Amino acid sequence: MAQAQKITPRAKDFSEWYGDVIANAQLADYSPVRGCMVIRPHGYHIWELMQRALDDMFKATGHRNAYFPLFIPMSFLAKEAEHVEGFAKEVAIVTHTRLRATGKSGADAIAVDPTSALEEPLVVRPTSETIIYAMFAKWIQSYRDLPLLLNQWANVVRWELRTRLFLRTTEFLWQEGHTAHVDEADAEREARTILGVYRRFAEDWMAMPVLTGVKTESERFAGALRTYAIEALMQDNKGLQAGTSHNLGQNFAKAFNVQYQTAAGGLEHVWNTSWGVSTRLIGGLIMTHSDDNGLVAPPRLAPVQVAIVPIWKSEDEKSQVSGVGSQVKSDLEKAGLRVELDLRDTMKPGAKYFEWEGLGVPVRLEIGPRDLASGQVVLARRTGGKTPVPLADVVASVTVALEEIRAGLLKAARDRREQNSVRGIDKARFIDLMKGAGGFAYGGFCGSGTCEAEIKEQTGATIRVLPDPEFRSKETPKTCMWCGKPSVAEAVWAQAY
Amino acid sequence: MAQAQKITPRAKDFSEWYGDVIANAQLADYSPVRGCMVIRPHGYHIWELMQRALDDMFKATGHRNAYFPLFIPMSFLAKEAEHVEGFAKEVAIVTHTRLRATGKSGADAIAVDPTSALEEPLVVRPTSETIIYAMFAKWIQSYRDLPLLLNQWANVVRWELRTRLFLRTTEFLWQEGHTAHVDEADAEREARTILGVYRRFAEDWMAMPVLTGVKTESERFAGALRTYAIEALMQDNKGLQAGTSHNLGQNFAKAFNVQYQTAAGGLEHVWNTSWGVSTRLIGGLIMTHSDDNGLVAPPRLAPVQVAIVPIWKSEDEKSQVSGVGSQVKSDLEKAGLRVELDLRDTMKPGAKYFEWEGLGVPVRLEIGPRDLASGQVVLARRTGGKTPVPLADVVASVTVALEEIRAGLLKAARDRREQNSVRGIDKARFIDLMKGAGGFAYGGFCGSGTCEAEIKEQTGATIRVLPDPEFRSKETPKTCMWCGKPSVAEAVWAQAY
Repeated sequence: MAQAQKITPRAKDFSEWYGDVIANAQLADYSPVRGCMVIRPHGYHIWELMQRALDDMFKATGHRNAYFPLFIPMSFLAKEAEHVEGFAKEVAIVTHTRLRATGKSGADAIAVDPTSALEEPLVVRPTSETIIYAMFAKWIQSYRDLPLLLNQWANVVRWELRTRLFLRTTEFLWQEGHTAHVDEADAEREARTILGVYRRFAEDWMAMPVLTGVKTESERFAGALRTYAIEALMQDNKGLQAGTSHNLGQNFAKAFNVQYQTAAGGLEHVWNTSWGVSTRLIGGLIMTHSDDNGLVAPPRLAPVQVAIVPIWKSEDEKSQVSGVGSQVKSDLEKAGLRVELDLRDTMKPGAKYFEWEGLGVPVRLEIGPRDLASGQVVLARRTGGKTPVPLADVVASVTVALEEIRAGLLKAARDRREQNSVRGIDKARFIDLMKGAGGFAYGGFCGSGTCEAEIKEQTGATIRVLPDPEFRSKETPKTCMWCGKPSVAEAVWAQAY
Repeated sequence: MAQAQKITPRAKDFSEWYGDVIANAQLADYSPVRGCMVIRPHGYHIWELMQRALDDMFKATGHRNAYFPLFIPMSFLAKEAEHVEGFAKEVAIVTHTRLRATGKSGADAIAVDPTSALEEPLVVRPTSETIIYAMFAKWIQSYRDLPLLLNQWANVVRWELRTRLFLRTTEFLWQEGHTAHVDEADAEREARTILGVYRRFAEDWMAMPVLTGVKTESERFAGALRTYAIEALMQDNKGLQAGTSHNLGQNFAKAFNVQYQTAAGGLEHVWNTSWGVSTRLIGGLIMTHSDDNGLVAPPRLAPVQVAIVPIWKSEDEKSQVSGVGSQVKSDLEKAGLRVELDLRDTMKPGAKYFEWEGLGVPVRLEIGPRDLASGQVVLARRTGGKTPVPLADVVASVTVALEEIRAGLLKAARDRREQNSVRGIDKARFIDLMKGAGGFAYGGFCGSGTCEAEIKEQTGATIRVLPDPEFRSKETPKTCMWCGKPSVAEAVWAQAY
């Protein structure tokens, strides 16, 4: 149970607010290991719900789960040149396999045994392309083995210098899909299918609207041909890359010699894709919906969807409202909902309301003797509003309320994003915007990495995506918003996490 | 889809047989990282089903999942003396965090960057008591915070020299429960509750009968007060420790200073338990039920419970039997079963039967035009026997068959275990048994570690458990079967994995 604590208002300090919401809802905690977090039960429950939903979607699109080793031989990482370049500076490296007693006492009592040095150091996976495609080379012989559509749920480690709970931690949990295909078109279709899955998950489950599109070369995954992403806008008007899907081309297939016999009898390298989302999504969920009272959990991912708070003064009343509360809980659970009945007698109802609010519970049912006398209970929404509902209709009322809350959260987040998106931006406005309010800036882009680097240097903003047609402005920009040269594509810039 | 390959008969070489069953059913594969395996989709699916069942049982007994860091500061391991002693010689140690280019080419192109050495090395968790109880010290203040009942699903690493797929691998997947309690009685109750959960899971889900009991001091978990275990007997008459539950006493609480304020206002150390089962269970499942034709999956944990194989000669027939096959598949899936419809036209029915058998599928439905003409299909059980069943009753017939198969597997395994258990053993018979057939040997034990060590040295057998009352012999042994001194408890010995 959360111990309610003070939450810094968003307007005062967004970053403090973020940490306070997490602490108050007991979602996560710092650990004694630099950059590594502990995901506490309330936070982990959100991750479990995310996993379940995504896993069902992956399986519905033909993927199967597998598990590959945590360790990658150092030499494997070196096989794809861009890949090692991208990850070399942020990996945890295992070099020894034994500890020995030193004869000293306390913290110095043990040390690494120097005689246990590994011949080849092992890298703790920062991502698993290299080890997985080494196995693909063993398993794939013929076009009949393709497509090979795998996914794994795993922990990965990237040695980050600046970390923040959920958003950027040295170790994080994620899923990484890895697939092999006969040709580029099939790999491209797969990368796009998954982008669609991620978008659907973000919108339908997280109530977090996203832009989809392709990354520029400088923001591409190390070793990919093309990287697609879903990008969201947080309440502080910073962007959040929430998921990526890569068409890896034949880069890894060539590095790891993953070849297949074609139907015509020839020998070809496969085309790979990889794609992932991580516990970072929980950070996105928090920063999209929560308010100065704490977490607002979108209903489908709320660990507790309904908190029932009976109200009593006498023991007689207690027995009456508790009985009804139990019945309502049981009815709601039969309808598949996650429900808590709060019978603690050490706290007043108001304090309970406050606590359940901080935990993000979408619907609270207040059951008092007077309500019961008129055959009703009070339904309070985390997003605001209290209405009496007939006790007889409580399951239907709650179900409808949860769906309305979800739709309302999605709409509110989309409206906020659109209000904080500027289209057809020019350089002066762009600089002002990035100095000030932030948000998504749509403008023409010349396609030059030099321009991108200069913009990043001067404003901190990066191209989040070259958006898909659905998100593009009605008027196609003709010139680069920064350098004025002809535009090759509309881009969306933002400062980002 | 599995590529059927030859399976060495059990009688010829059990260890070869085990590897062949795994390869044939594509459950797992060796990886390029010494001692680490790849769990392939068919094997991982079994693990997912195990996870789902166990997780439901943990939650039903009040536990919540959380996630703690992969890395443990080296000094933490040293805080509990027996614990570090138990794990010091088999840990993966992270000492550096960057790679650098060497200027050389090929596999030598990168090396560990010596300037990236960590001040304090990090151990990859071999188990998480130390890091978890360090967090408990932060979270637990008062008796109101107890009991704290957590579990995590995670990977752990123990640097094993001799490894075998599923049974003993450097990295493995497991769950580890960690709880804190106000007193010894409550911790003891928890350790026992979990032992019961493990036993129920082994018997009801895996159809694998187990003995329960307590370990002797020499087989106890490093740092525990008492270790309880479930122990199974494999088809080669070797024992398999399938799950353990530890009452840790106050050892870790004292090492990590986990104290709570009692109701009376005093300050006490908490009592901890920890408990775990791992992907080793998959090895147990294989070695309990499978036969010379390959995997036999117990129905509740079978990735595919029903394989439907339509049989046709003409296109007309194909269309007819496929149509019925689809309908049957859909009906069975609506009943919650996992079903595959095998419409491949590159294989003959016999070859398909053989393949589904190797994959361990409990029930196969053969649908041929002649059967359909008489309104029936043929139901073949993986454990033997073929019977026609009316098409109209197919869901009920399959459901009943699956349950009968499960009960039959459990009974067969229990009968086998009892046939291979010798009670009231004496020294001469014991030596013969351990040289010969193996199995569970019940006999008196004097309680001395010296005796245990001598027995292990001379026969390779260890005490699997001092069995719980239910499993003890009717006649209580009076003397130690080895040294002849008075017996303090009946023990069950076996050579074990």
